[in-house]
Amino acid sequence: MKFIVEYCVVLVEPKYGGNVGAVARSMKNFDVSSLYLVNPCEIDDEARVRAMHAQDVLDNAMVYSCFEDVRNDLDYCVGTSSVVGMKEKSCLRKAVSLKDFAEQIQGFDGKVGLVFGREDYGLYNSEIAVCDVLVNVPTSEGYPSLNLSHAVTVVLYELFTHGVKPRDVKGMGVVEKENLNRVLCEVLDLIGYPAHKREKAEIMLRRLVGRAMPSIWEYHTLMGVIGEVIRRLKRF
Amino acid sequence: MKFIVEYCVVLVEPKYGGNVGAVARSMKNFDVSSLYLVNPCEIDDEARVRAMHAQDVLDNAMVYSCFEDVRNDLDYCVGTSSVVGMKEKSCLRKAVSLKDFAEQIQGFDGKVGLVFGREDYGLYNSEIAVCDVLVNVPTSEGYPSLNLSHAVTVVLYELFTHGVKPRDVKGMGVVEKENLNRVLCEVLDLIGYPAHKREKAEIMLRRLVGRAMPSIWEYHTLMGVIGEVIRRLKRF
Repeated sequence: MKFIVEYCVVLVEPKYGGNVGAVARSMKNFDVSSLYLVNPCEIDDEARVRAMHAQDVLDNAMVYSCFEDVRNDLDYCVGTSSVVGMKEKSCLRKAVSLKDFAEQIQGFDGKVGLVFGREDYGLYNSEIAVCDVLVNVPTSEGYPSLNLSHAVTVVLYELFTHGVKPRDVKGMGVVEKENLNRVLCEVLDLIGYPAHKREKAEIMLRRLVGRAMPSIWEYHTLMGVIGEVIRRLKRF
Repeated sequence: MKFIVEYCVVLVEPKYGGNVGAVARSMKNFDVSSLYLVNPCEIDDEARVRAMHAQDVLDNAMVYSCFEDVRNDLDYCVGTSSVVGMKEKSCLRKAVSLKDFAEQIQGFDGKVGLVFGREDYGLYNSEIAVCDVLVNVPTSEGYPSLNLSHAVTVVLYELFTHGVKPRDVKGMGVVEKENLNRVLCEVLDLIGYPAHKREKAEIMLRRLVGRAMPSIWEYHTLMGVIGEVIRRLKRF
């Protein structure tokens, strides 16, 4: 899975190595490899432990001394916050929702920095001010503040799923679907289903099949079961 | 933000208090308060530290000694996995994507358990087998395995953002669901379904019912049809 747009994760002054490690793991879970750290804490044992199979993300992390320098290495700078301005006039903290952003950014050509602030304070207003967009992760009004690696995970998940087509197993085709609906109707015939309720029942079965979306294997199993039911109902 | 459907988070044999604490925090971030723990590790200082402002979630957590007991307290049981079956026949691990699930579950009437497995092993096949649906969080093929609290966070985020959409019809409850699964098994018995394929077929039927999410009216119609099939199969 490759993104057309190139994402990198920017952590501004993270305080706990464990969080940085957890972020690295999550990045690897969603195929993002570039980690930029601004004036970070030490990459300690806890960071290594929590990064699990993403040690390379930590090894290759770029360290900056100030946010302005990172800003200059990015084509598009995305601030993140779970606390957003409620007032119309709060232009600085007026944010787009994560889902809308994920939609909009598809196909952008360049390096997009996803910027996450300090564990206790988030991003300063001066940092938010130079971001190209502020993205909000919707959370509880009662307790909006996400853990740092949780915030990164949700953002990467949303971007990842916008780039992916679900790796589903093959569903049954139109011929199989009609076969299935046909044998279900045959069962209704064989049990003498009341004529006045018959049409509704047929539609209902069709809808249930439609919603369940059986795979081709499930189709064959179902046909086996229903076929045997029909053989036995006919026998007598 | 209120859900009509009541979600609870079920952690099966979590090994690290820190993860349990991080999960509790994330739950509070997304307005979910019921935490069920199956045979958990100790709720230690690390759990308390990482739970932050969600101490009440830890305090009110219910502890179970086995998964079957939790299963009986839920109306709808949702297994989660980031590793899904690639093979057509892998019925057990055939999963719906998180986004599709979030869409389908809206307006379900009852207690929905979101079940997460062990940090190192996930859910056992025997546990997945009794879930009504298996949900997959799309991740990198190279490193699919999410940290436990990250997995919980992504699932809760997706459900939270889908919010409330009124559903026009009442869905069937846990009693109806079990009745339906029971009579379907009875049909398998009556047609002498081959023993070596029996378990897979049972799981498949449970999943089809889970994915189709019949309304209460559809349930009664289905029970009428299957009941008549059974009466006729028994007659001879």
